[in-house]
Amino acid sequence: MHIVITGGAGFLGVRLARALIEKKSLAIAGAPAEAITRLSLVDRAEPPADLLADSRVTAVVGDLNALLAQSPERVVPSDAKIVFHLAAAVSGECEADFDLGMHSNLDATRALLEACRARKTVPTVVFASSLAVFGHSEEQPLPAVIEDNTLPTPLTSYGIQKFIGEQLTADFGRKGFIRGRNVRLMTVSVRPGKPNGAASSFFSGMIREPLAGVPGACPVPRDTPVALSSPGLTVRGIIRAAEATDAEWGPRTAVNLPALATTTGEMAAALERVAGKAVAALIDWTPDARIQKIVATWPGRIDAQRARGLGLLPDADFDTVIRDYIRENPHAIAEVART
Amino acid sequence: MHIVITGGAGFLGVRLARALIEKKSLAIAGAPAEAITRLSLVDRAEPPADLLADSRVTAVVGDLNALLAQSPERVVPSDAKIVFHLAAAVSGECEADFDLGMHSNLDATRALLEACRARKTVPTVVFASSLAVFGHSEEQPLPAVIEDNTLPTPLTSYGIQKFIGEQLTADFGRKGFIRGRNVRLMTVSVRPGKPNGAASSFFSGMIREPLAGVPGACPVPRDTPVALSSPGLTVRGIIRAAEATDAEWGPRTAVNLPALATTTGEMAAALERVAGKAVAALIDWTPDARIQKIVATWPGRIDAQRARGLGLLPDADFDTVIRDYIRENPHAIAEVART
Repeated sequence: MHIVITGGAGFLGVRLARALIEKKSLAIAGAPAEAITRLSLVDRAEPPADLLADSRVTAVVGDLNALLAQSPERVVPSDAKIVFHLAAAVSGECEADFDLGMHSNLDATRALLEACRARKTVPTVVFASSLAVFGHSEEQPLPAVIEDNTLPTPLTSYGIQKFIGEQLTADFGRKGFIRGRNVRLMTVSVRPGKPNGAASSFFSGMIREPLAGVPGACPVPRDTPVALSSPGLTVRGIIRAAEATDAEWGPRTAVNLPALATTTGEMAAALERVAGKAVAALIDWTPDARIQKIVATWPGRIDAQRARGLGLLPDADFDTVIRDYIRENPHAIAEVART
Repeated sequence: MHIVITGGAGFLGVRLARALIEKKSLAIAGAPAEAITRLSLVDRAEPPADLLADSRVTAVVGDLNALLAQSPERVVPSDAKIVFHLAAAVSGECEADFDLGMHSNLDATRALLEACRARKTVPTVVFASSLAVFGHSEEQPLPAVIEDNTLPTPLTSYGIQKFIGEQLTADFGRKGFIRGRNVRLMTVSVRPGKPNGAASSFFSGMIREPLAGVPGACPVPRDTPVALSSPGLTVRGIIRAAEATDAEWGPRTAVNLPALATTTGEMAAALERVAGKAVAALIDWTPDARIQKIVATWPGRIDAQRARGLGLLPDADFDTVIRDYIRENPHAIAEVART
């Protein structure tokens, strides 16, 4: 089985690729499990060395729109059975540069779906949408708990573009051009590596940086609610979306992945419990009005009913998520946090 | 005040243009009323003679996408204060020709919004969406009554494209590129003239054709629910969308226009009451599985709460709607129906 991951050199793409390699085989749409024989990682960047060294991995390096315009067959080869579409410009970027977001998110998603439609066989396309489709405002408050059939009211261009991507994926699926799966990712924390342009980037940085022994910004108040998912559970949800039969999956509307309902204050308390007072003291609570304004529109509580039906549950607690991060990223942990 | 109507030579566009001419002036966004000095009717066809003869009317004839690509300034002149975007490929066409729908509905709407964004001043854009954004299926049943915050689950490409148009209009509005208004039209009946490619076309034809003394098809069962609005009330809702202040209008999500909840059987009974047994006997109830399949996904009952708050109420009964049609279209009524 040949699998394509767009954004395959990004944090989630790499994690997904490693999970698939470890899994060795995948069963989709009720068919018997098939060995994963090839992984195409499409991204502007090269994937890390361990993936490049795997004989099953092909790196397709370039801008997704440009690649799709020049040679769609390189992005979605005729034998690819699954396309995990993770590539996207992130929320902060899209808010700062409207055209970039429209091009990287809307145009690229549509071109990718058209490339799939142009093939002779029908691939499974898992579209990674986001809880950013939900926007809370005074004039249109979100319900206290978000359910799968809650009306999305995106208040960022990123959220709008993701929601449009869901609609396109649903209709290409309904038309039989693809087997479509819309899955909404929660705020992923703790992400390793460097901060990115996502407005949600600090939800990882406020934990990751202190664990590395340097200050990490949390630019929102301690009572800010957040619907979190660990990287591991997020990748598990993405894979489950491809595996589920149509009957298990249900309607073409998006499935909200499960989320741990917590707050930045509780996250800081968990950090103190796991890594000590000195580490937690490295969180810099200086407010940032721009980030606060975006984050204030995001929901904090998700009732992921359809995900539960698929066997997907939220992380039990954030202490465990931090401990997992420390175990998985030993090189990124300072001496002070190893107590 | 210069006003643009895309689809301005279509049935609703013409009716809207005539209503605006009769109204003479319009007040938008709480500003004082301004005289309507120019009406640009953008359409592939020429508007009817009465409109062409009006010195305020300019016909801009051509394909909307082509016009926008060649000279956006002709479609959205720099002095245009309101753009009513009614132009669209209809549901039946979009289901039969996927690319046509994507081009005529998604691409044209986006290009129109970009043309508005490129101007120095911010126009009001009223986007005519449709109750076709709601799709009922066994695996994802609609609630018995549709409210403004019911999750749209479009089951036609037309519905998907309209829903995407709403998202784009909302985000262009949020970004301050336009003053955006999303308004969902109900099934309009009785439309004068000829049948069109809309799957809903028969909701007018089953009344219009018998009144003209010829058979009219109703290809769905008598108990088929339908959420109807007369042409007059539909145009009133579209104009109200432009007039309402931001505070009156509320959130950027779409407002469902009010609808009379009825059935094809009740419509036939109304026709018999108004025009007699012989006329109602001209309804041809031969079923059409293709049409039935599409219509079965549409909701029949709308609670148009936001519309009520704007002073918009549904037609009182279908008998009155038929009588209005007869009064407004004397040339289209056969002798047998004049009893």
